[in-house]
Formats: sequence, C-alpha cells, structure tokens
Amino acid sequence: MKTHIAGSDATSIRLRGHDLVEELIGEHGFTEVFYLLTCGRLPTPTETRVLDACLVTLMDHGWTPTSLIARLAYDSAPSQVQVGIAAGLLAVGDVFAGTMDGCARLLAEGIAAPDRAAWCQATAAAHRAERRPIPGFGHPFHKPDDPRPPKLFRVAEKAGVKGDHIALLRGLGQAVDAIYGRHLTINATGAIAALLLEIGIPVGIMRGVAVVSRSAGLAGHIVEEQQARHAREVWRLAEEHIPYEDPPV
Amino acid sequence: MKTHIAGSDATSIRLRGHDLVEELIGEHGFTEVFYLLTCGRLPTPTETRVLDACLVTLMDHGWTPTSLIARLAYDSAPSQVQVGIAAGLLAVGDVFAGTMDGCARLLAEGIAAPDRAAWCQATAAAHRAERRPIPGFGHPFHKPDDPRPPKLFRVAEKAGVKGDHIALLRGLGQAVDAIYGRHLTINATGAIAALLLEIGIPVGIMRGVAVVSRSAGLAGHIVEEQQARHAREVWRLAEEHIPYEDPPV
Amino acid sequence: MKTHIAGSDATSIRLRGHDLVEELIGEHGFTEVFYLLTCGRLPTPTETRVLDACLVTLMDHGWTPTSLIARLAYDSAPSQVQVGIAAGLLAVGDVFAGTMDGCARLLAEGIAAPDRAAWCQATAAAHRAERRPIPGFGHPFHKPDDPRPPKLFRVAEKAGVKGDHIALLRGLGQAVDAIYGRHLTINATGAIAALLLEIGIPVGIMRGVAVVSRSAGLAGHIVEEQQARHAREVWRLAEEHIPYEDPPV
Amino acid sequence: MKTHIAGSDATSIRLRGHDLVEELIGEHGFTEVFYLLTCGRLPTPTETRVLDACLVTLMDHGWTPTSLIARLAYDSAPSQVQVGIAAGLLAVGDVFAGTMDGCARLLAEGIAAPDRAAWCQATAAAHRAERRPIPGFGHPFHKPDDPRPPKLFRVAEKAGVKGDHIALLRGLGQAVDAIYGRHLTINATGAIAALLLEIGIPVGIMRGVAVVSRSAGLAGHIVEEQQARHAREVWRLAEEHIPYEDPPV
Repeated sequence: MKTHIAGSDATSIRLRGHDLVEELIGEHGFTEVFYLLTCGRLPTPTETRVLDACLVTLMDHGWTPTSLIARLAYDSAPSQVQVGIAAGLLAVGDVFAGTMDGCARLLAEGIAAPDRAAWCQATAAAHRAERRPIPGFGHPFHKPDDPRPPKLFRVAEKAGVKGDHIALLRGLGQAVDAIYGRHLTINATGAIAALLLEIGIPVGIMRGVAVVSRSAGLAGHIVEEQQARHAREVWRLAEEHIPYEDPPV
Repeated sequence: MKTHIAGSDATSIRLRGHDLVEELIGEHGFTEVFYLLTCGRLPTPTETRVLDACLVTLMDHGWTPTSLIARLAYDSAPSQVQVGIAAGLLAVGDVFAGTMDGCARLLAEGIAAPDRAAWCQATAAAHRAERRPIPGFGHPFHKPDDPRPPKLFRVAEKAGVKGDHIALLRGLGQAVDAIYGRHLTINATGAIAALLLEIGIPVGIMRGVAVVSRSAGLAGHIVEEQQARHAREVWRLAEEHIPYEDPPV
Repeated sequence: MKTHIAGSDATSIRLRGHDLVEELIGEHGFTEVFYLLTCGRLPTPTETRVLDACLVTLMDHGWTPTSLIARLAYDSAPSQVQVGIAAGLLAVGDVFAGTMDGCARLLAEGIAAPDRAAWCQATAAAHRAERRPIPGFGHPFHKPDDPRPPKLFRVAEKAGVKGDHIALLRGLGQAVDAIYGRHLTINATGAIAALLLEIGIPVGIMRGVAVVSRSAGLAGHIVEEQQARHAREVWRLAEEHIPYEDPPV
Repeated sequence: MKTHIAGSDATSIRLRGHDLVEELIGEHGFTEVFYLLTCGRLPTPTETRVLDACLVTLMDHGWTPTSLIARLAYDSAPSQVQVGIAAGLLAVGDVFAGTMDGCARLLAEGIAAPDRAAWCQATAAAHRAERRPIPGFGHPFHKPDDPRPPKLFRVAEKAGVKGDHIALLRGLGQAVDAIYGRHLTINATGAIAALLLEIGIPVGIMRGVAVVSRSAGLAGHIVEEQQARHAREVWRLAEEHIPYEDPPV
C-alpha cells in the first residue's frame, strides 16, 4: 500500500511526483498546486483561470452559518484560529455552500445523454412533476437573477474551455423557464458545477473546492472578530429575541 | 455595529468594498482575494507572489495528524467531504502546522529592537540558557537543513520584498549557530513567519494561512481515500501494533 | 419565538421547566436529565435504566476512527481537550457508531405493520433479494454472535419495558436466519435501536445518544494519551506501512 | 506499546479490565463507567454522586456559543447530528464552559500549602494587586451569588466527601471578599473544580467533564431545532442588526 499524495525525506519533499522546492514553490501558484493535488497533474492555464474564478466566487458572502459559527467558536478559544475556521467549515454541508455536487451529477448525466435537448426537456419536466427543486436553480435573495453565473461563464469562455457543460446548463435553464412558465435563475452553485466539470474536477471532491475557498473567507471573518466583538452581539441578539420560556404543560 | 467583510443585496455581492462580480471574479486570483479579506486591501504583485509561495509550501507533506484525521473522519461519513477536511484542520494546532506565530512574535520584537545584531545574540543566548526551543529553528527530519527556507527567501527577494525580516531571521540563525556551537536549521515555519511579516499579514491570523493552505492538501488526501482505503489500514495497524491489555492491578 | 430548553436569570437557571438547582442537581442523575432535555420530561425508573444501559454499551470499544482521531487531534493541541473529543465525535457518522437510526426506522415501520410476522418475512426477503445489508444485523468481528444484545434485552426486560420492539427485532432475526439460510447476529446497534424505541427516544436524535456516550469514552482515551504517546506511534506506523511513492506516469 | 482503555475479541469487549457485558452493562451506570474510563477504577457511591451532580450542573444554560453553533451547524447538515454536537463542543474552550482547570490548578496549589489560611490571603492579595481575575470567582449575570455552588457543596457533603478542597475554596472566598472590599461570588466553575478535586478527577481532563456534560445539552438543542427553526432566526438577526458596510477609505 502506497500513498501518492506527498512524502518527504531528509532533503526533499515530493507532492504527486513533483519536488516541492524545485518545481512548485515560486514556480506554480496555490490554485495550480491545489489542482495538482486533487486531479493528479498540473493544470493548463485555462484550467487554472477557471478554478481560480470558482475559488474567488465562493470565498464569502457575509453572514451565513459558516461565518457565524467561525466567529462564535473563535471567541471561545481565541488562541486557536484553526478551531474557528474548522468549526465554520463544518457548515459547508448538504444545505448551503456544499451543494454543487447535486447539479454536477445532473449535468454529468445530461452530457452523456444521446439527445441533450430532449434530456433538458425531460429533466425539467420530471422535477416539476415531482415538485423537487432542481439543483443549481433558484436563489432566495438574488432575484430575478444571480449576478455570478454570467460572469463565471464569460471568464470560462474567455479562458478557452470547451463549453459543453456550460451550454448544457444554459439549455436546461431555457427548458426550466419554458416548462415552469416562469424564470428560475441559474445560481452560483449551478454555474460552478458546470465550470468544475469543464476542467475535470471529480464530482466527489467539488464540495472540497467550496471548503478550501470558504476557509479563506473565514480567516477574514476572524480578523474582523479580533477587532470587533460581533460574536458577543450575536449571542446577545439570540437571548433577546429568542428568550426561554417554560414548556407548555 | 457593522461588518466590513462581505454583504449582498438582490443584485450584487460586495467584499471589503469591492464588487465581487465586476471587480474580483476573473479579475483577481484566489491568493489576491484572500489577502484582501485578511488585510483589507488588494495586494501588490510582490505581496501576491510571496503569499502564494507560502500557501504552496504548507499545503501538504504526507502523513501528518492532519491527513490521518481527515482520512479517518471522511471514511466515517463519506458523503460529507467537509467533515473530513474540517476534522483534519483541527490538528493545525499549537504543536505542528500552526506554529508560525511563535517565530513571528519573536521577529516582530527583534525588528523593533534598537540594535538588531545585539538582539540576535541576546535572544539566542536567552533561549539556550533557559533550554527553551527557539521558534522557527530545528526540524526532526530535515537535517542538516530544511530545504524550503532558502527557496522561500529567493522567491521573496526576487519578488521585491524589503527584506528586513528575512535578514533578521538569518542574523538570528547565525547567532544561534555560534552560541549553540552547532548548526540548527531555520525551518519552514520560521521562513514563512518572516515572509508573512514582510507582506504585512497580521501575526494573529498567520495560523489561518496554514489552515487555508492545508485545506487544499486535505482535499487531495480525500480524493486518494476515495480510491484507496488507507484509513482502514491505519485502523488495522493501530489494532495490530497497540493492542489492548487489561491494566496492571 | 421562544426556546424551551434552558434559560437563566440573576438568581436561577431553568431546564425544560425545572429549576436546575432546586429540582435537578443532586436530585436526578445525568442520564435522567439527558432524557429530560431530549424527550421533554423526566424519565421513569424503567426508562432511566434502559437509557443508562445504552449509554454504557456505546462508550468505547478500543481503536476505532473516533479514538484514533481524538488521540491525533489532542496531540496537536494538548491544551484543548475539547478539540480532541469533538474531532473524534465527528466520526460518529453514517458508517460506524452513528448507525442505529437505520434499524430504528425499520423497526418503527414494522411496529406499525398490521401483521408483524408477515412484515418480518417480507422485510428479510426484500433485503436478501436486493442484496442490501439489513440495518442492525451482522458484525465484522463478533461471530457468531455479538455479546451485547442478549444482555441489553435482559436489562430492558428486567427494567420493565413493554417489549414490543425487542420482540419485533427478535422476530426479524428469526426471519433473517430462515430466509438467508445462515445465522446473522443481531448487533449492538440493532439492540440499542430497539431499546431506545421502547423508551420513546425520537429516531432523529438516536445518533446523539451515541455521541454523548462516546464523548465519555474519548475522554478516557485522552487521559491515556496524556501518559502514553500513542498518537505519535499511529503516525509512525502510517509512515512506515503506507509510504509515499511517485504516482505511476 | 499497549492500550488499557478498551479492546475486544470475537466474544467479548473489555473496558479498563472489566468485561463490558458481564460487569458493566446494567450493572453500573453511565456516570460510573465514565469515572472508570478516566480514573482507571470504578467509583465509590460518594464519587458517583458528586460526579453526577457536576455533570447535571454543566449540561446547559440556554443560549451560549455552544448551543448557537450546534444549532447553526446542524441546520447545515441535518442528516448529521454528530456534526452539530461536535461543532458546538468546539466552543467548550478557554473562555466559557471549559474553564474549571484554572481554578482546579489554583486549589491544587493551595491544598499543598503549609498554611492554607495564609495561602488564601496571599493568593487573593496577589490577584488583586496584579488585577488578574481569580479563576472560579465572579459571574456576569448571577449577582450577587451564583445559585449553583451552595447546592453543589451540600450535595458533596451529604455524599460524604472529605471536604478539604471545598473548605479551601470557601476560605479563599472569604479572603477575596475581605481583600477586595466587596463580595465576589464563587461561581459554578469554581465549585465544580473543588468537587472534581474531592473525587480525584485529574485536572488535565476536567474540561472533558464539561464536554461530556454539554454534549447532552446540545442533543436537547438539536431536538428543539428539528421542530423550531431557531438557527435561521439567529442568522436573520445577524443580517438585520450587524449589516455590511463598505470599509471606511
């Protein structure tokens, strides 16, 4: 049994077949080496630009369970920055930030369909009939449209992706609007699923891209928490607005 | 009370005063926006290159508590990639990967000293006398020298840093060798502390740089765990080599 | 919006309608107040004895992902006992210790069936035909029989439970043996699911019983880690037995 | 290298030298086996009652970082009860619930002093002079007195503890009031430190007692979160009361 991720001896450290000091530090950026570690080879410039855009997109968008948790946990163990960040990352789960896998699985199915247009129609119709939400569509706040997907598509196209998955997602969006009789926005999760498929990120680790990205956002929140005591205010708000009451008998 | 990290409305998302879609996605890389979130402004190209080199350096170096934990936790909840990564990050603690703050605090003290050469002598002598380890020096495996610091210094110098903190760390290294009467290597932790000080990363969030970096390495480990069952082998090894025995009466 | 779990004012603390100081501390044990917090009322002596037996059963059984992770995480942040325990608890997941919900859902379905004997036959047959594992049956090490269920059933019966769920699980076991043509043991997870149903623990929080119980076991592991350095040995074993190798080209 | 915590073979499971099935399940309660795992022997009835009272005291007291985090994390991964509880436990840190070690270390020092009354005077005077908070004294909400310590002392005395550590803490309290010229309450953390010392719990694992206890409280919070969506309300409150604003230029 061997690991092919990383190893070291007295004089060198190797990552996925590359010498860390000679070939990676100062020679390739963080995004490239992240791609190397998850995909097993260094990325092309196209792949790097697309992954970078996805990482920037998911870093933060304000108060969310991840940032609230990170602040509260950090405030409880202020010498332990890693505890705040790790606690927050536990909320990159099935409900919020960790949800691109659903759309990615759907798109991976559609890309393999013999007739993609027919697949878009059938998929939209099936979700409608079963009243199931379509992964990658809809947003509670960004209406009528999530502003991120158009930019992500532009960046990916300019970077030179083949574009099949993006086209499929757009096609699905048109089918959704037609069949639902109203406009449902493609959301950032959906767009990122399409982009990560374009550059060959395995579906099983896509949530990891969200985790890496969000870890950087949470570091920012902890810097602010070191100056302003927002966690204590969140606590106070909960006590004031959700008070205790004896249970009804 | 306000937060200045991030916020959104129906049509836009803002990060530290920048429009995410217009100004950041596709315009600035992950490393730059990470700098923005922790330091409050976009970095110069010098700062970006140095932060990038630090992030690449800390990503992974094989079996460590972080990667062992991530593998074991992922294996217990394989639908929850974030749990594996977050569990592993909890080990970026006081003992292993999270240890650059100690050296950074030391260097920040030395940079403010009226006579830096005298400070190097006094600091080395004091640690020797009190038999306290000097943060940033020594390595259990990389002997006689950790291969990462020389490369990190070269990258930083080529990127155009001012170089005061690097010079101080080198000066301290010479004092250490002289006073201890043997060579103690500057380790990666020490070099990264110096580099992060060069680019203005606050000491209180330096461990966060290690956390962000390592999150990417752990994503790589989870990809491998999805293919090879190393966690089960680690478990089996523990059972075989550290068996249970009734306590001595 | 109100919470009914707990609250305090200057002179008192209330838990689910009880005064902590007057009515709970020294008046009721940990297991009773745990039942109060999850079920909303203090338990009968029968319920207390059954919950207590379940909590004792799941506390620990040696090297598992939970104990390995707790040791490794504690070793990385030795001032932070809570980090070691919490990291270990993250592995009470879908695969190992957190698996009683599956059997509990099955039994809850069977208890509502018009003809329970027929349901046992049909359920065993369906799992066999679909080659799906039956939750609550089988054990990798304890063969032919897991030693815990018979004792758990005896304790529950002696404590005075009604016994419907235990009878159903036993009936299912007989159907399984007949239909599979070989003996599959009822495992501890299955027995605990039946016992917790007997005392009215909601299925949705059963995994929480495992978490509470295992937290105590992990505290024991951390006490031992403070004296013996097993985490370092686990790490060494991984490095020795699962070495790094450059990936095949 | 051996572990003495737990192990199993095909037909039995052993914990710290006891057969789980024959000697523990149904024979000893959770609190007793928790004591066994951390202290290496089964407790006396005195020790059990005292540990039980401590476990009940720390279970929950409403909105705290632990309960807020557990609710928010659970809401992000509702199939993973363990993630909610473990995330919440990460906040049993240096600031809130995990703070009995400080007082325990102080009392352990005092108990070894040749003249305990003199030690109380000197300790109170030293903390006052250095303006350092005395661990185990003072409470932000419970004024003039934390209601828990008197009950805990009564329970411990009735259970038959020797009482040295309780007497020392009371003596320290009198010295504090005299030297500070105002009444500072002994808080629950201080009282629990004294009680756990009375029954021989090692100082290094005392925080683990808080973790075990709080895990049960967090299970209660998750049960309520399954019915009422408090986490979403906390999130909404943060967005409403701590809005984003571009940073000042």
